Amino acid sequence: MKPNEWTAVEIASAIQSGRTTCEAVTRACLEHIAEREPKVQAWEFLDPELAIAQARALDKRGASGPLSGVPFGVKDIIDTFDMPTAYGSPIYAGHRPQRDAACVAMGRKAGGVVMGKTVTAEFAVNYPGKTRNPFDATRTPGGSSSGSAAAVADFMVPLALATQTTGSTIKPGSFCGVFAYRPTFGDVRCSGVMESSSSCDAVGFYARTVEDIALHRDVLVGIDPEPLPEQVAAPRIGFVRPPQWSKLEPYTQQLLEDAARRLARAGAKVSDAVLPVEFRHAEEAHRTVSCREFALNFTQEIEHHWDALSEDLRNGKIRLGRECSFERYREARALAERCRRGLVSVFEDYDVLLAPSAVGEAPVGWNTGDSTLASSWTLMHTPTMNIPVFKGPNGLPVGAQVIAANGNDRKLFAVARWMYQRLI
Amino acid sequence: MKPNEWTAVEIASAIQSGRTTCEAVTRACLEHIAEREPKVQAWEFLDPELAIAQARALDKRGASGPLSGVPFGVKDIIDTFDMPTAYGSPIYAGHRPQRDAACVAMGRKAGGVVMGKTVTAEFAVNYPGKTRNPFDATRTPGGSSSGSAAAVADFMVPLALATQTTGSTIKPGSFCGVFAYRPTFGDVRCSGVMESSSSCDAVGFYARTVEDIALHRDVLVGIDPEPLPEQVAAPRIGFVRPPQWSKLEPYTQQLLEDAARRLARAGAKVSDAVLPVEFRHAEEAHRTVSCREFALNFTQEIEHHWDALSEDLRNGKIRLGRECSFERYREARALAERCRRGLVSVFEDYDVLLAPSAVGEAPVGWNTGDSTLASSWTLMHTPTMNIPVFKGPNGLPVGAQVIAANGNDRKLFAVARWMYQRLI
Repeated sequence: MKPNEWTAVEIASAIQSGRTTCEAVTRACLEHIAEREPKVQAWEFLDPELAIAQARALDKRGASGPLSGVPFGVKDIIDTFDMPTAYGSPIYAGHRPQRDAACVAMGRKAGGVVMGKTVTAEFAVNYPGKTRNPFDATRTPGGSSSGSAAAVADFMVPLALATQTTGSTIKPGSFCGVFAYRPTFGDVRCSGVMESSSSCDAVGFYARTVEDIALHRDVLVGIDPEPLPEQVAAPRIGFVRPPQWSKLEPYTQQLLEDAARRLARAGAKVSDAVLPVEFRHAEEAHRTVSCREFALNFTQEIEHHWDALSEDLRNGKIRLGRECSFERYREARALAERCRRGLVSVFEDYDVLLAPSAVGEAPVGWNTGDSTLASSWTLMHTPTMNIPVFKGPNGLPVGAQVIAANGNDRKLFAVARWMYQRLI
Repeated sequence: MKPNEWTAVEIASAIQSGRTTCEAVTRACLEHIAEREPKVQAWEFLDPELAIAQARALDKRGASGPLSGVPFGVKDIIDTFDMPTAYGSPIYAGHRPQRDAACVAMGRKAGGVVMGKTVTAEFAVNYPGKTRNPFDATRTPGGSSSGSAAAVADFMVPLALATQTTGSTIKPGSFCGVFAYRPTFGDVRCSGVMESSSSCDAVGFYARTVEDIALHRDVLVGIDPEPLPEQVAAPRIGFVRPPQWSKLEPYTQQLLEDAARRLARAGAKVSDAVLPVEFRHAEEAHRTVSCREFALNFTQEIEHHWDALSEDLRNGKIRLGRECSFERYREARALAERCRRGLVSVFEDYDVLLAPSAVGEAPVGWNTGDSTLASSWTLMHTPTMNIPVFKGPNGLPVGAQVIAANGNDRKLFAVARWMYQRLI
């Protein structure tokens, strides 16, 4: 196995024990990128010399830290001091921030190598960049964290930073067949990440194993990484047919129902979860809250760069946001709060919930697909993970979404790994 | 009365009716600044030509909008596309952001003139800039929104933007004798405001009347400004002796207790409010939450510019934040959440709470003073206002803090005005 196929845990261990160097790992990733990038187009900015210079500097001073020599991709909505950050918009082509976002600076401090900036949809909303699905170039990788999901799926890097305001981490994770994780709201600092909707925004994570997700998350919440606890007891799993269930492809419904049965046979206590009544309005409340916040946050661009915004953004979420009254916005926030409180008692009966990540396989074309399976959970502020456990009728990835109670991120990891091991 | 002494409401009305021009108002403010700035030192960046150019452009196209021709100051922690933003740190001297913060762009869109950037403490935390108290140059104006509070108090501008993470809006408001307002958490967008602690950060407001505060707030939450409702019924006021009561100067205790009696005589229903038991831990929880978030958000500066950080920040809040475990941080957030829920029932009995804004008059020297009277309310996410109603033993301003339930910002304005009219 070439180093670009190693996990972050394997890379850090190999480097710390002197079995390889940061430079060798970075070069292996760069070679693979050079080969695959013309097809996948995951990178908005990539300077091989800059990546190698970081790796050499780490080798020289003796790489230490939990991410020793681990290359990671950074979604181009996240500021970097040594690389341009264009936020997926021609308005900011070549823009050079003066400081790293906290999530980037903390990754470097832990020994990581910033490989480059990955393609994002315009302002991390909808309008897609150039990235293609690594399994089928006629299809979307999903968005808005398109490049980060594709780069990890394609073995270009073991880790990549994403963001999620609607479904921007979970959906591309499902379409590209990687582990995708959105932490408990507020646990990972967003300083230096372009704000689109502060009531919903979170830093997201991609990796090819749960252990790598857990490692990267521990680094970014500022704790010494700990091994994941083994899930010894049979987990209590609540099966969720969300209000959008009828939108799912029949094969996705089938895959999820089969999975619930298989997990029960493997010893899990599985039953249908009853969500708070307000949850059926959560998708709409999320749209109300996020779109109104977009419309205000992008005032500068609306006033000065209207023609440089995509038609999609102008006539889509910005228009929705501008049409929304402050009263309706506040009501939606209040509904979200009631719904979050209602979920607390749901999680007294379950360790995790099992729900769809996306409607089905990645669709053909440029549209990044339906995000509504993820958006309600975004508003709930709960930690959530895509586990890449299914294949659709075209042999393409379809994920399942696993959700834990607010603050139970490590339980989420342990149970998600237990489920993954029994479903693949 | 010269135009620099007019309120924002008066300026907008005079300009809209053609009685004066944006340029004339801006020039009047600039003349006053030229005279007073050597003593007060409120401005981190001020380019008279740039301010006049904005005013002329507004005159040329026919100023419209609720802030027509109203000059406002912008705390130098808030990004502006046409002026440098140094965040109160030598690390970012001359830094030029590429876009306006949402709160600045919305103010311009409403017809306002960005007068310049006002002095902030380092990263909006503690370490003071050059500004002096306009009433006594030997004393602090308070911080971190030092320049904004001083500029409004000194009639340099009718409005100024602040921020509050601990007590950075309310405390300088008390020391400088102006109305100061921190909105319900999440109501005003923070995009483009340097993040220090996203669990606590909010945009703050200064003005010399409640009506001006309300006008500016309506603009920044994105609604058409409405006249303040008259407070017709006698308000129900809960008097608060917070856990920090014994730290107050005896004269501050006396002033507040007298005020409660006077308000009762004026018809208000005043009684001692009983706060949730957890509230006595709110000050400590605020410190835990905010300091840990500082320490992570400033990773870039800690790693690359350690020597350019003040000793005060390094050995103060950054050290506290680094010593704090993730568990303790999460417990403090959970305590805050319980306390917020407990407050909901307190506000069933009261329209507002009346509490101290600060320990007493502005202290002599550079230290920006004690923020702990404000910090617990910051963590509560409730809207809060300083009303400039008292004078201390040296004839300097001392304020009272008025707090309303989450979302009741307009009720706060109406009751605060009622109280102000009866206390001055």
